[in-house]
Order: sequence, then C-alpha cells, then structure tokens
Amino acid sequence: MTRTSFPAESGAAAFLNADAFLKDFQRTADFGATPNQGIDRQAGTAEHGAVRDWFAQKAERRGFSVKTDPIGNIFALKEFVPGEPYILLGSHLDSQPQGGRFDGAYGVIAAFHAALAVEKAVEAGLVPSRFNLAVVDWFNEEGARFGPSIMGSSVYTGALQLEEALNVRDADGISVRSALRDTGRLGEPVEFHTAVCVEIHIEQGRRLERSGAHVGIVERNWTAQKLLVHVRGEQAHAGALLADRRDALLAAAEVVTAAHREAHRHRADEFITSVAKFDVHPNSPSVIARQVDLLLDVRGLYQKDVESARSSLIAEFGEISKNHNVDVDVEEFTIRPSQPYTAAGVELAEQVAHEEGLTPQRLTTLIGHDSVALNRIYPTVMLFVPSADGISHCEREFSSDSDMLNGLRLVTGLVSRLVQHGILDEGAE
Amino acid sequence: MTRTSFPAESGAAAFLNADAFLKDFQRTADFGATPNQGIDRQAGTAEHGAVRDWFAQKAERRGFSVKTDPIGNIFALKEFVPGEPYILLGSHLDSQPQGGRFDGAYGVIAAFHAALAVEKAVEAGLVPSRFNLAVVDWFNEEGARFGPSIMGSSVYTGALQLEEALNVRDADGISVRSALRDTGRLGEPVEFHTAVCVEIHIEQGRRLERSGAHVGIVERNWTAQKLLVHVRGEQAHAGALLADRRDALLAAAEVVTAAHREAHRHRADEFITSVAKFDVHPNSPSVIARQVDLLLDVRGLYQKDVESARSSLIAEFGEISKNHNVDVDVEEFTIRPSQPYTAAGVELAEQVAHEEGLTPQRLTTLIGHDSVALNRIYPTVMLFVPSADGISHCEREFSSDSDMLNGLRLVTGLVSRLVQHGILDEGAE
Repeated sequence: MTRTSFPAESGAAAFLNADAFLKDFQRTADFGATPNQGIDRQAGTAEHGAVRDWFAQKAERRGFSVKTDPIGNIFALKEFVPGEPYILLGSHLDSQPQGGRFDGAYGVIAAFHAALAVEKAVEAGLVPSRFNLAVVDWFNEEGARFGPSIMGSSVYTGALQLEEALNVRDADGISVRSALRDTGRLGEPVEFHTAVCVEIHIEQGRRLERSGAHVGIVERNWTAQKLLVHVRGEQAHAGALLADRRDALLAAAEVVTAAHREAHRHRADEFITSVAKFDVHPNSPSVIARQVDLLLDVRGLYQKDVESARSSLIAEFGEISKNHNVDVDVEEFTIRPSQPYTAAGVELAEQVAHEEGLTPQRLTTLIGHDSVALNRIYPTVMLFVPSADGISHCEREFSSDSDMLNGLRLVTGLVSRLVQHGILDEGAE
Repeated sequence: MTRTSFPAESGAAAFLNADAFLKDFQRTADFGATPNQGIDRQAGTAEHGAVRDWFAQKAERRGFSVKTDPIGNIFALKEFVPGEPYILLGSHLDSQPQGGRFDGAYGVIAAFHAALAVEKAVEAGLVPSRFNLAVVDWFNEEGARFGPSIMGSSVYTGALQLEEALNVRDADGISVRSALRDTGRLGEPVEFHTAVCVEIHIEQGRRLERSGAHVGIVERNWTAQKLLVHVRGEQAHAGALLADRRDALLAAAEVVTAAHREAHRHRADEFITSVAKFDVHPNSPSVIARQVDLLLDVRGLYQKDVESARSSLIAEFGEISKNHNVDVDVEEFTIRPSQPYTAAGVELAEQVAHEEGLTPQRLTTLIGHDSVALNRIYPTVMLFVPSADGISHCEREFSSDSDMLNGLRLVTGLVSRLVQHGILDEGAE
C-alpha cells in the first residue's frame, strides 16, 4: 500500500466554539430526559420530534438549508461550490428506552459544530473547499421501537426498501409512516451527491479507556448475525407434573445459557453473543409458557467464527428441542458482514489526530452504526471517543467534556481536509 | 380413626337433568370464546361480567336469591330451613388468558345443577333438609389479571383483607374495585353461616386418567411457595464484551434452569418447580437487560421438601449472583401450607361414589383451588373428574361429557347427604 501524503494542518479547529458545542450537546439531553441523567427518546416519538425540530431550527439559523427525506433523515446542507458532491457527516438523535445522552447525539452535535468551524475556515480563506458539507441526523438508528435498527441510513444507501421501512409498526401498531407524519418528518427526496461519509460516536466499550488513547479510528466492523428463535411448547397449568409439560420458557432459558457457553469458546475480544429481547407467552403466574420468542445476537471479528457458532448453536437447539419436547425454529433475519473502512480515511484521520496532539488507536467496531451501512456504498470514516466503563444504552453512559472536545477537534480537522481533497478510496480489500 | 356410618342413598341424583347441565355448561364457553375451543375470560373483564350476569339471571329464574359480596363473590341462595347454616358449593367462572373452558366453569355449573336436583329431592320429600344451600361463583380464582389468585374465597375466609384486594391493580393500572364496579359486582356483605364447603373441578393432571378411576377425592393439598425473584444487573449495549456485562437475562435464565434441576432431585410425583412469569427490562433488541423479575413456584407434597429446596435454591442464586455480577433478591410472598381435607368428608364422598357405581381414587392436589382457602376455616370436600392428557390452562383442556356427568352425580349425592346431616368434622390432623 502506498502511503498517501496530505497537506499540512489547516487550522479549522481554531474556529471551534467549545462552550457553544457543550451547551448545545447538553441541551439535547433535555429532550426525553429521564430521572437519572439518561434519555428516553425513541424514534418517531414526540420527544424525538422535538429534539429534531430544535436541531433543524438551529441549523437554519446558522444558514444551513435543512431538508428531510422520505424516511425522515434530516440533512442540513451548506453549499460552498454549487453542483459539487458533499462530505456527509453526522449520527442520530434517537435513543434506546432509558438510554444514555451521548449515544448518537454527541455525533450529530459534534458534526454540526465541526461544520460551523470548517465554514468559518473556508470563509476566512484558510480552507479552499472543493466539496460541500451536509450535517445529517439519521432516522431510527436504535431500532428499539421500530425494527430493524440503522433504518434511515440503510434506506439512504438502498439496502432497505423505503416502503418496507415506512410500513414497519411498533408494539402498539403505529407505523413508521404515521410516526414520521406526526412529527413532521415525512419528507421528499433530497438530491445531492455524497463523496465521503464521516461519523463520530462514543466507543461503547472500554478499549480506549484501558489504552489511554484519546480517539479511536475504526478499521473494520464485526460480522453480526441475528437469529430470531421461536421456542414452541404447550400451555399448561403450573401445577402440572414435570413429565407432562412442554415448557417453552425452560427450553428458552437453555437457549440463552447455550449461547453464553458458545461465546466462551472463542477469544473474549473477538466474539460475543447476547440475548436481549425475550418475549414469553402468555406470561401468566400459573401457566407454563406455550411460546418464547427471543432474539439471539452473534457477533465476531471473523466471519468464520460467526458461521461456526451459528452451526453449533443450531445443533444444540436440536438437543434442547428433543430434551424438552418443544419445537425450536430459527429465523436468520439480519446479517451484517465484516467490512473494512477506507484505509486512506483511517490514515488521514490518524494524521489529523497526531497534528491535533491526540493519541489515536486503530479499533474495530463490535456495534452497528449508521456508518456501517454507509460504508457499503461510500468511502466512510468512523471515529470514536472514550466511554466511561464502556457503559452504553444505559442512563449511566458517560463521556467527559474533554474527551468529547478531543473528538470534536479530530472531526473538524478531518472534515477540513475532506472538503479540500475528498478521499482517495482504494476500494474494498 | 372411627369409621362413621352414613344413611343410605337418597336418590337426589335421579332428579338431575343431564341435557340441561351439558347445555348450560356449553353455554358458558360462549363467553370469551377463543378460536380454538378455549376461553379468555379474565377476572373483571367484560366477558367475565357477561358470563356472571348470565349465571345470576339463570339462578334467579330458578328461584335462588342471588347476592354479590364486596369482593364480587356471587352467592345463589336457596333457603330450606330459615336461619340454619348453608352447604356452600361452587367454583369460579374466570379463566386464564387463552385458558380452557372446563377449569372453574364446570364446578359452578355442576354445583348449580346439583343444587337444583337436591331441591327437587327436598320438595319431593325424599331428602329431609336440615341445612340450606348456596351455589357460589368465587371472584378471581385465576389471578392472571389481578394477583394473588384465589382472591374472592381468600377474602371470604379472612385470609386476605378486603381493602388490600380491592386496591390491586392490573398491568393497565385498573383496580379490582373499578373492574368490579364496571361489571356491576361491587356488592354488600352477604350474611349467612357456612357449615360445609364443596368444590368439584377437573383434575388438571393425569392420575385419574392413568388409574381409570371415575372420580378423585382430595385428601390433602400440596405445600406451595412462591418466590418473586428480582435479578438486577446493568443495562448495556448488546455489543459490550462479555466481561463488561452485568447481564440480568443470562443470570435469570440460570435461575430457571437451576429451579428445574432442583425439581429433578425429588420424586417426580411429589415435587415440582416452575417459572411461568418472566419480565425482562427493557426488553429491547440491542440492550443487555438491566432487570428480570420472575415468579418461581415451588410445590411439594411434603413441607420439608419445599423448605429444603427453597434453601438450596437461594444458595444457588448466591452463586449465580457472584458469577454474573448481578443482584438476586428473593421475595417470598405466598406460602400455602399442606393441609388435610376433612376425613369425614373424604369418607362420605367415597361412600357416595360407590353407591353411584363410580370408582373413586384418593388424591392430593398440587394445584391451588378456592377449596384450599376455604379448607382453612370450614370443613371442605374437594372432588375431581378426569382431564384428558392432564392438560389445563390451555385451549386444549378437555373432560368428556360422561366424566362430567359422573362428577355431577357424585356432587349431587354428596350434597343431598350434607343438607341432611352436615358433616362430622374431626378437626385438623
């Protein structure tokens, strides 16, 4: 691989307003605030609608042209060179139930303030821009209310059909279409050409915290496979003798422990399994469950590990089925293959980090992000800042102001390079 | 023990109208009918209110005085001898979600038709009555919507405080008081003295089916202990490494499998455990659960087995807590001690069975019934008829017409003896 050389530090980070950034970031946490410093701002709810309106108005006041597309992605466009492609940077403002205030929101507000600083550098003649800028708030990254997750960016890249996404319904039967209409975000196609995507996000792990690096630069995402497992027994009185039962809950509990044992057969930093959603029917105190539906998530750095785990788990489910006289059906409904991020982007981000006096660490991402979807189509750069204790999707999620500001300097420096030069994408490995 | 001798067959069963009984029983299954022959008629719902109105009107048309007490128990009174105590017979008309049409309803309709036949025998001068008759529909035996189960009869005996029961709320926040008011069953105290209680019910097990006996006569109820187990970990991203998790769902799955292993350490026909209710928080696809609340039910013929199982399980929960870095709290909130039913009642029922040409079998009950609550205060007789495959709390629950009619003859013969002689209660063992 040829090492590309880049021009020297542009100085756009000097135009950052750290206080304004922190204030704006903190303001987002008021929308859907929970008692313990978290937020509950699921996609398409009133709270989500409100934070998005706040963001859109803020961007408009700063001279961005704000547009919403048909799946509710909000783009705040800043055109420097009419007709040229855009550097597209951002993340998402929705959250998990009782989620943290950093996940997603940090990335949107950091993108917005990076764009403001780059704009000033362009206006000051320090950054000769060849590309335009778009700050994006992707719709429904979390997928807590409406599955699948990473919905808005997946529709944007064409990986998910628009109509299919709009027709998804939540547990109360409300569709994405109707939630978008109710929050005023059922928009029209937004026409611009995307050159490069950038996302900055909290790490949601402890690698940066442990290494002491200031920022993470993502080289590759893990393979992720989701298995929707249906365990079907027969409803019975909780006073039935053991031999007379076909207990779906007991069998499903064994599915959970089997998945955990499988994870322990692999390297701890290269493989995980989890069951997070687990629905019991009828879930009544004196009725043996007739059915459990559970979502098993298998993730690994290497595709072959995920494939072999999948096979051994399915064989083990056959044993569980036999032992407990229940049916176990497996629906394999989402696969996210492992894929590298653009090497030129990783190198550029690394160079900028050094120039900003930050220690970068190359990482993989275990977790899906909008950038993972975008990376299938566009050269994409994904950056991380440290998370305290690796805690995320939780009210206790935390990143310090200085970590957030380090990330903001990195993304600002990076974007100021990208609006000048774009990226030299060598293509996939 | 002295064997008591009883007068000869009274012949009240000759006054039974089998067709009318079957028709009335089948009619109850129309209220809250599910697509697969079951019923969904949870306590205090509109469907439950409707079947109770139907029953009350039917009893009034047949000359019963129908009264509802403050916890919604419906009594249909037939006074033969003013001022004398009552033989109180009945069961319950509420059901589990997607429950069977026999559980409870059979006992109410059989009690009603037994009472009609005994009344005719009294009117015909064949049965000289010293006691009066009350057919009862106990409120909320199932406890699916409003816990605890066996609510109406427990308030009746004083084991549960009326105000406490009225203030219980369902998952939607609706109180028992308001559900009773909405269904017109928030009544006034009903004043009469109870001499003996009788309940007939489907077995909800396979013992009669396997032995070929026609009817079961219950000698004793099992000890039942319920443990409400709260497993508290910490919400985290489903992409967190295993070592960084405090996964409440995984630990709760181990609680379920531990309870199952414990059951296998005892005799299969003397001990069971089950987990039927299992609530995961937040139950979102990409969030490691912060908490699981589950209801563990431990039942045994012998108190000492239940106690020793409880101790070893609690020790095992300590291990689970340590292994997964979660808190496991156990609330022991209901205990139903093992207690014998009146021996004189068992003997009388056995004698009547033989006189009716039925083969009786002495049994224990694993399962709680209104009769278990009543048996703490009043001499009580509990009778069973066979259940196909032992299946209950399920749409597939089934007892044949001939099994139901056998039970009806038994309860009629028994009650005709009881209105004449009451019962000689030797007191508890």
